[in-house]
Amino acid sequence: MTVRNSVTPRAATDVSNYDIETDVLVVGYGAAGASAAFEAARTGARVRVLDRAGGAGGASAMSGGEIYLGGGTPIQLACGFDDTPEDMAAFLTAALGPSADPAKIAEYSSGSVEHFQWLVDRGVPFKPSMWDAPTWVPPTDDGLMWLGENSWPFTELAKPAPRGHRPTAKDFGGNLLMECLAGAAEKVGAETLFDTYVTRLVVADDRTVVGAVARRYGREITIRALRGVVLTTGGFVDNDAMLADHAPQLLGHTKVSAGTDDGSGIRMAQALGASVRHMGAGQVGMSLIPGLAARGMVVNARGQRFMNEDTYPGRIGQAALYRQNMGGAWAGGDTAVWVIVDETGFEDVPAPQRWGVQPTHVAETPEELERLAGLPAGSLVDTIARYNEFAVHGTDLDLHKAQRWLRPLTPPLAAIDVKAGIRPPSESGDRRGTGASVFTLGGLHTDLDGHVLDHDGYPIGGLFAAGRAANGLHGFGYISGTSLGDGTFFGRRAGTAAARNL
Amino acid sequence: MTVRNSVTPRAATDVSNYDIETDVLVVGYGAAGASAAFEAARTGARVRVLDRAGGAGGASAMSGGEIYLGGGTPIQLACGFDDTPEDMAAFLTAALGPSADPAKIAEYSSGSVEHFQWLVDRGVPFKPSMWDAPTWVPPTDDGLMWLGENSWPFTELAKPAPRGHRPTAKDFGGNLLMECLAGAAEKVGAETLFDTYVTRLVVADDRTVVGAVARRYGREITIRALRGVVLTTGGFVDNDAMLADHAPQLLGHTKVSAGTDDGSGIRMAQALGASVRHMGAGQVGMSLIPGLAARGMVVNARGQRFMNEDTYPGRIGQAALYRQNMGGAWAGGDTAVWVIVDETGFEDVPAPQRWGVQPTHVAETPEELERLAGLPAGSLVDTIARYNEFAVHGTDLDLHKAQRWLRPLTPPLAAIDVKAGIRPPSESGDRRGTGASVFTLGGLHTDLDGHVLDHDGYPIGGLFAAGRAANGLHGFGYISGTSLGDGTFFGRRAGTAAARNL
Repeated sequence: MTVRNSVTPRAATDVSNYDIETDVLVVGYGAAGASAAFEAARTGARVRVLDRAGGAGGASAMSGGEIYLGGGTPIQLACGFDDTPEDMAAFLTAALGPSADPAKIAEYSSGSVEHFQWLVDRGVPFKPSMWDAPTWVPPTDDGLMWLGENSWPFTELAKPAPRGHRPTAKDFGGNLLMECLAGAAEKVGAETLFDTYVTRLVVADDRTVVGAVARRYGREITIRALRGVVLTTGGFVDNDAMLADHAPQLLGHTKVSAGTDDGSGIRMAQALGASVRHMGAGQVGMSLIPGLAARGMVVNARGQRFMNEDTYPGRIGQAALYRQNMGGAWAGGDTAVWVIVDETGFEDVPAPQRWGVQPTHVAETPEELERLAGLPAGSLVDTIARYNEFAVHGTDLDLHKAQRWLRPLTPPLAAIDVKAGIRPPSESGDRRGTGASVFTLGGLHTDLDGHVLDHDGYPIGGLFAAGRAANGLHGFGYISGTSLGDGTFFGRRAGTAAARNL
Repeated sequence: MTVRNSVTPRAATDVSNYDIETDVLVVGYGAAGASAAFEAARTGARVRVLDRAGGAGGASAMSGGEIYLGGGTPIQLACGFDDTPEDMAAFLTAALGPSADPAKIAEYSSGSVEHFQWLVDRGVPFKPSMWDAPTWVPPTDDGLMWLGENSWPFTELAKPAPRGHRPTAKDFGGNLLMECLAGAAEKVGAETLFDTYVTRLVVADDRTVVGAVARRYGREITIRALRGVVLTTGGFVDNDAMLADHAPQLLGHTKVSAGTDDGSGIRMAQALGASVRHMGAGQVGMSLIPGLAARGMVVNARGQRFMNEDTYPGRIGQAALYRQNMGGAWAGGDTAVWVIVDETGFEDVPAPQRWGVQPTHVAETPEELERLAGLPAGSLVDTIARYNEFAVHGTDLDLHKAQRWLRPLTPPLAAIDVKAGIRPPSESGDRRGTGASVFTLGGLHTDLDGHVLDHDGYPIGGLFAAGRAANGLHGFGYISGTSLGDGTFFGRRAGTAAARNL
């Protein structure tokens, strides 16, 4: 039995006075919280945003800043791409599945052009130019990028259009995005309080949420929220006990967070009878250079390819971790994943874009490379021979990598162990470790207005959630930009709904 | 928003009178419920067992009846196998992982010999003879079988001993097991009430569970439980909305249940603030004949092998469904899984043990078989060539199948589509469909005495759970016999603890 911070709700009858009174209380000041606070405050409601850290930001500020937008945004049109909400929804349904929320995907897709304009109006800059190759983050300030839409099987399911929209910034744009959103929220009157950790909700006799209890510099404070509480506390990647219970495959990998994604908001609401969805799902940022992978092969510990290497690299990462057992949590697992590339492919990617990656092994023959990498005899030799035959014929019969990236691999050859890590330009150290950086996608079950639902499917009065405290758009899949995307989009909805909850 | 039967707890202050009063209320009359009822009743407590069906049984009665037992049972010793609780625990930790419950595994392993005797004392017959080949259910009445303990990687993690204990019965033994357990419970005084569907719990002001509300022939009845309520309502495989939220990979496959595993007990407790674990986990009974698979290969839609074919067949099934996308829920997935076997291997398995399986395709060459099965050109040809080389050298470099089962595959060759189904002798129809029959493993988080824990890790007063309403021993893995095993073992504990909860 693990005893944690108590999240058991406090009865309103047990709270004699409140230290703070507001209309809408927003708990957590990342992108979702800032979006909720902005929309609530601009209705004229009193809004208070709390964060346990010393300022706004959370995991949002550490991110690349990509937002998944489409349906014909000005950036898409300027770059020469048509798009429709229907194609966007078809792609998201496949990419975020299985069991991604169809109503949320439809709403998000049809509202995407408006949401783009909302972001621009908040001061978020997007440059109308395109980066046209697989990458985690473009090495340029290009504002539009593919996120797997032009890779199999999605090419067969929806008309491809690039939908990765990226704020104009040097390297990672999350900081800039947060500055714009927090600035906008505060400009319309949202008040903040930092270094304040909300631990439990305050509930009336009828289970309506009417406030929260928090810890601030060792002292307990109480906040009364007349219209509602919006939980934007993030996911639970920093809570190993929750990972063990719900997503043990993610344990032990590098955590993508500001260190505060402990699932507290999810647990506070669950203690009150809230339901959750897809708690096992996770994004997997694999420590590979997408440009190198696209120019070569990605193989598992048996030397087998398992996914078309030109797709959104997070899909390769999810497959590696959940299906090929990278990291080795599952009994009997293979634990290694390798990027195999030849000298031509390696040098095709300019050195600065290789983020410090070096070949782990170099060899003059497939046989030698296989031996150096410790792969079963003949396995990689067979896989390279088969791949090279596909390249000669221009068709990847196994995994449907686009012809553009198919070229026979010719010695000298390199094998890169993804556990050796990458060194993104925005970070000082190496991402060395297990080959993966992860965060959670599961969370509270909400409706389109961010109401948190109970186990009967009914809203819990006065309780809202958005961002990674909620499951949002996601099934078990993930695409870059859908977390900031649904966090800001449905964060706005939650803020509006809470302010109207008179 | 899906509206289901309400599971919101009813306040005790809103219940004016009770139709039934008992000390211990057991909800659900499968193996776990019968075990709990027996132990509670033999302390002298008044015990009432409810079931929504017209009699005892549930999914337990439909099962093969195998119970996972070891540590040196009389049956193991009679068959010439030494075993220790430590080896049993080491195997279970690996096989039921990741994140299987270490305390429950230790307790279950050290108490296993006693639990065997308890089952014998309840009249469950076990024959001291061994069936020594991979199978779902032995074609004989042998009482002991391997469940993967002698397959890689477990051979490297624990001293192998067979631990599949099977009641002496013609074919499936679940019915016999249930007769023994229900008979024992009723003999010591447990009273039953059938056709009664419990919908919600009754709670006192301090959140202690003091009873339940049920529906019986369209009328609501209330039951007061002075010492506690034990939820043994089964898993949630019959609830597609819950599957979509928590285990979408299991959607659409054949459900292993009596049709009543709707997760009601899990949801009733969650509505009260109970926590759950591993809701994404599922057992996958794959529609293949283990003896044929062991004598051949199992390949995915790219013609690749992915697991040693001599292991517990449920592990092959889990890998096929969760990792090779059998059934196709995941975007971009392959959807086929094939058993490849040659004529010698096929005929080595006597016809009655083939459970109606016929080759889907037969061919004189690997090339022809590959073409008939629609596998990518060259894929199966390569895999067979590689496998045959392993067979010649007596070592499976890729997946470590035991030498005993390695033999070059020589034409004529057959490919068997697992979707064609199997026809277990105990069933009238074919199990034709998706290639898999599934049930859920996730459920309520309990301690060693079956107390249901809240999100702070504390027991909820008066509330107990066992069987598949609880997560029990399991992480994401499964081995036959661990469900009846932990259901009866921890069901006993829950019944004892509830009866003592004065």
